Amino acid sequence: MNAPNRMGHQTVVYRNTPWIIATACAAGPREAQGPLGDTFDLVADTPDFGQESYEQAEVALLREACRICLDKAGLGEKGVEAMLGGDLLNQIMPSSLAARALKIPFLGMYGACSTMSEGLLVGGLLVDGGYASPVLCTAGSHYATAERQYRFPLEYGNQRTPASQWTVTGAGTVLLSLPDPGRKPLAQLTRACIGRVVDMGVTDANNMGAAMAPAAAATLCAYFDDTGETPEQFDRIITGDLGSVGSELLLEWSGKMGHPLPRERMMDCGLTIYDPAQDSHAGGSGCGCSAVVLSSFILPRLQSGEWRRVLFMATGALLSPTTSMQGETIPGVAHAVVIEGVR
Amino acid sequence: MNAPNRMGHQTVVYRNTPWIIATACAAGPREAQGPLGDTFDLVADTPDFGQESYEQAEVALLREACRICLDKAGLGEKGVEAMLGGDLLNQIMPSSLAARALKIPFLGMYGACSTMSEGLLVGGLLVDGGYASPVLCTAGSHYATAERQYRFPLEYGNQRTPASQWTVTGAGTVLLSLPDPGRKPLAQLTRACIGRVVDMGVTDANNMGAAMAPAAAATLCAYFDDTGETPEQFDRIITGDLGSVGSELLLEWSGKMGHPLPRERMMDCGLTIYDPAQDSHAGGSGCGCSAVVLSSFILPRLQSGEWRRVLFMATGALLSPTTSMQGETIPGVAHAVVIEGVR
Repeated sequence: MNAPNRMGHQTVVYRNTPWIIATACAAGPREAQGPLGDTFDLVADTPDFGQESYEQAEVALLREACRICLDKAGLGEKGVEAMLGGDLLNQIMPSSLAARALKIPFLGMYGACSTMSEGLLVGGLLVDGGYASPVLCTAGSHYATAERQYRFPLEYGNQRTPASQWTVTGAGTVLLSLPDPGRKPLAQLTRACIGRVVDMGVTDANNMGAAMAPAAAATLCAYFDDTGETPEQFDRIITGDLGSVGSELLLEWSGKMGHPLPRERMMDCGLTIYDPAQDSHAGGSGCGCSAVVLSSFILPRLQSGEWRRVLFMATGALLSPTTSMQGETIPGVAHAVVIEGVR
Repeated sequence: MNAPNRMGHQTVVYRNTPWIIATACAAGPREAQGPLGDTFDLVADTPDFGQESYEQAEVALLREACRICLDKAGLGEKGVEAMLGGDLLNQIMPSSLAARALKIPFLGMYGACSTMSEGLLVGGLLVDGGYASPVLCTAGSHYATAERQYRFPLEYGNQRTPASQWTVTGAGTVLLSLPDPGRKPLAQLTRACIGRVVDMGVTDANNMGAAMAPAAAATLCAYFDDTGETPEQFDRIITGDLGSVGSELLLEWSGKMGHPLPRERMMDCGLTIYDPAQDSHAGGSGCGCSAVVLSSFILPRLQSGEWRRVLFMATGALLSPTTSMQGETIPGVAHAVVIEGVR
């Protein structure tokens, strides 16, 4: 049917290059002790962020990251035409409750830890196609709420396995807009690749990296096949939270699938947010991981010109405690967005 | 910033009028005994649909509704450029597992029972903007999985309250495409309205209609304010699953908000899918309710010319057992899509 802004099987083209005009992130104390801590816009002194529950703390992180982002853009909430967001909790309640407070038209996304790139991808469509501008894209997670929901409440004190990852307590937000000569953009979106759900039979809910790596490789290979581009055309190919185990597996899988990746151009947000001395095992994870690193680490490098072009691909492990208990394997999904500096 | 395909605060315009080129639905035995039963494409003889769990039955309903829809369009799964779907279960696992089987690039949506209109709205953007075509939009639910997750397992045998609704066991699917002279469309999308999250303080998880009605009224009023249209310009204004309690409240709220609705043009999918003699209390509900009624009841009337233009607005109650137990009120959201016949 020849959709005109489509390349190949999975890639979309943003001909109007939606601009990222502002970004902000809020994170917890453990994240603030990591190497990026000084660059966060807001740090919660305690994991409960002064709220009555960890769930409400997650709501507050999302809401405040959005508010700071809008402040930076000099916009009120009424000036934003749509908000896209998601998180890891059942029924994405933290995002829904943040959207309730902000009163912005809201589309809920769920892609597990791939949500930040899913939101950017769909937000990019809204802006590029002229359906809404500006558009707020956000994602967040919280260590204590994720542990309670997916594994055990923290009070249980269970031992972490070597391949396990640490869910980031934090939220990141990006404001997209049609190109606007009155503003100075941080970066722009040019292409995106919608991922397929891929399952290689992993069943260990403590080894998310292994479950997500094949999906990440599949999306990367689809993007390179669709566009004819090569990994060398990116300063960094950035995954969301494959961690140390999943990142190695991505190199293996992508080679097997015919698109070997140059190790020196790879970066994983889960391996960036914590210092190895923080003992996070295989690295950070959660929707908030890629969202916070995008806001605090990636976008500043595109704005400064240190990087010219990156492929930002958050990855999600599609499991629930119910499906895991019923013996299902863990499928993964990864959506990629090409983000470029504006010169 | 003057997005060109935007009207007012919340409404988007599909200038390329994405066509609905095929639809299908699959449902359970209780739904088949209702007034629409004869029009379903597939009926599961038993609630478990021959699967090992109700959750897997929900996966199978979604997957098979998609496959039948593609068959009707004469397309294989590889011919579809994107799939958007969601359901009520934690981490939208049924939709993700259906997408795993179909291998179509997949964007997970979550809007509780508003998911079918959310998926149509975003799928419409993909097609209208030329980013993908054809695009599959789907939503489903299952009585037994929803009761187990949100309330009690069926084995508990708890008594239902008068305002409670019956989650539909079923899935509906719609295939969108750019207008294609080689095909005969069922209908077309022309406009849509992205809903805001609205909360009027309802806390009764057995009275979803009351929680969703204010959000439905807010979206309707936003649409009429944005476009200058009136309710009389629609053959039907169709809500997803407000049920008997919520439908009355919608009439009240919309009047209070300045846009009184003509009762004779209102229709609720939750009041259409079951016969009152089936004792479903306040009516049907669930993502599958509006999806099945759209496929089996609404689209045939637009295709035949009996109706010319409808506003299809599924409504979602944004609650989780966690937030309810923590004392949160229940916010609602409603997204509206204008669907018109093609003459």
